[in-house]
Amino acid sequence: MSEFDLIERFFKRGAASTPRLAAPEAPDPVALGIGDDCALLQPAPGMQLAVSTDMLVESRHFFADADPAALGHKALAVNLSDLAACGAEPLACTLALALPPERARDEAWLGALAGGLLTLADAHCCPLVGGDTTAGPLTLCITVFGQVPAGQALRRDGAQVGDDLWVSGTLGDARLALGALRGEFALPPEALAAARLRLERPTPRLALGTALRGIAHSAIDISDGLAGDVGHILKASRVGAAITAATAFDLIAARAYLTGTEGQFDSKHLLPFILTGGDDYELAFTAPPAARAAVQAAAQRAATPVTRIGRIEAEAGLRMINAQGHSTPLAARAFDHFAD
Amino acid sequence: MSEFDLIERFFKRGAASTPRLAAPEAPDPVALGIGDDCALLQPAPGMQLAVSTDMLVESRHFFADADPAALGHKALAVNLSDLAACGAEPLACTLALALPPERARDEAWLGALAGGLLTLADAHCCPLVGGDTTAGPLTLCITVFGQVPAGQALRRDGAQVGDDLWVSGTLGDARLALGALRGEFALPPEALAAARLRLERPTPRLALGTALRGIAHSAIDISDGLAGDVGHILKASRVGAAITAATAFDLIAARAYLTGTEGQFDSKHLLPFILTGGDDYELAFTAPPAARAAVQAAAQRAATPVTRIGRIEAEAGLRMINAQGHSTPLAARAFDHFAD
Repeated sequence: MSEFDLIERFFKRGAASTPRLAAPEAPDPVALGIGDDCALLQPAPGMQLAVSTDMLVESRHFFADADPAALGHKALAVNLSDLAACGAEPLACTLALALPPERARDEAWLGALAGGLLTLADAHCCPLVGGDTTAGPLTLCITVFGQVPAGQALRRDGAQVGDDLWVSGTLGDARLALGALRGEFALPPEALAAARLRLERPTPRLALGTALRGIAHSAIDISDGLAGDVGHILKASRVGAAITAATAFDLIAARAYLTGTEGQFDSKHLLPFILTGGDDYELAFTAPPAARAAVQAAAQRAATPVTRIGRIEAEAGLRMINAQGHSTPLAARAFDHFAD
Repeated sequence: MSEFDLIERFFKRGAASTPRLAAPEAPDPVALGIGDDCALLQPAPGMQLAVSTDMLVESRHFFADADPAALGHKALAVNLSDLAACGAEPLACTLALALPPERARDEAWLGALAGGLLTLADAHCCPLVGGDTTAGPLTLCITVFGQVPAGQALRRDGAQVGDDLWVSGTLGDARLALGALRGEFALPPEALAAARLRLERPTPRLALGTALRGIAHSAIDISDGLAGDVGHILKASRVGAAITAATAFDLIAARAYLTGTEGQFDSKHLLPFILTGGDDYELAFTAPPAARAAVQAAAQRAATPVTRIGRIEAEAGLRMINAQGHSTPLAARAFDHFAD
């Protein structure tokens, strides 16, 4: 199979089979899809275009034997999560794919990869409009395009002293699954299954991101770990923050399955996963206390749980407050691909 | 150096140092650059957004010891060439970069890579607005964004029977340089220097692409080889074409330096380089004979030579016509990364 066949066969769809979010009378935002030198997009009038790109490399971001459908899902999900953090709605995506020759010949594997990617793309009306394939070590680079009303994008630099600090969903499960898969520790089967789903099939919080437009002062995708990514908000906004330890500890979803593991997964072991584990495609955001009801209403509209875990303060840095009210500084370290 | 430092230090510029094409009173098309979850772009009203992505892999697209400044230049140039083929003007680009740890520590190499990329970006007012870096085998994935008035993009599917077939610049030199660098044959030093410049520092034909809007019926970037890429126009437009051998042979720039090589580089040896060599970032386009003066005027405005090499015919397929008027079918094979 040639690289041209590969794109046409596995990644190109007929226009009729691509779901659309917009009302039927609205013009299709994709004026030209796969098959020319460029794709052509037409954002709605008054919209800014939001753009993000992420690259996933075998052995670095996923295991060589990763389920290809999950890999296709995750490669797009991590990019959609960046759109969510800006409050943008998806328009389209492109995929550049380097494949070892044996993968390029493996039609079942390619079909599953494309299926995982396109199923998530369909769910968020984010058609694949262009691509590039080449021989090389297995690498996926997706670029996503979204739109957001001009001036309404959620940014990192808008946090204000007195804001509540919120996070969506659950945290730490991806790191928990990774540890179990690496053999660092054993997990009960239910706990591994729950955690692994979060590692391999992350849910981009797009509905929450758009619902928070006009409510949140700042937002970020916390894929590099809560502490490090909240640190980016603090730095960009020139503020500090205090996180309440008890609320943070409640954020790990698999915790419900870890009772009876006799202290192996108590807060001392799990808090680092929550704070710096990474690979959690959730949003951290700040909003004024007066907007608490509005935040909860937005979360409900988006069918996405949110938790208030702390507040923005004038004093620089990130702190953890324990049950006794003692404050411990947290190193605002994000996951760094060159640090380990 | 962390991945965050790496982007900030080598690839991020102050707003003041980024040249802009638009008139000073026009709004900056980049509303938000590097440093948030997404970049925000604002295409001008009435414009469609043109998008293309290309991935370059070490040992596949460039040698491990490639000059990093040339590599940075080429990684962006091959993407800009896709914008040129659509008649789009550049707005911005993103870079996803996988780096082996030793490269991530090599500040001179990183500085040269960024310098090569950003110098070309400046020349075409195409600021880098976002990126991703990770550890991995050396891989560059650039996505470019351009704008083109709605409905005016040059496409592959507009060629009409009777159109002239044109190409810009020169062809075959990149393959000639590659052959010499691989040790397939020896070249006189001047010929190697001329050919190598075309291989390592290709010139995207952006000015020609925009000048051809409203004149050309179809266009394509012929980076995978003239025969294969013209084949894409023929297939999309459901037509055929005949190329005149003598004009095609004149297209190789290094030919001027190959006199006295005693038949080693005669037309029999060089024509395949011109027809299927690849890595030539030129445009092939079609336009009606009535537009010949307009094509030449556009080429002059763009300071880019163009050559009329054949014509579009109703009979399917691609043919070469020799000096005696004999027609030989050409296999319309483009360079395929999985075929060798």
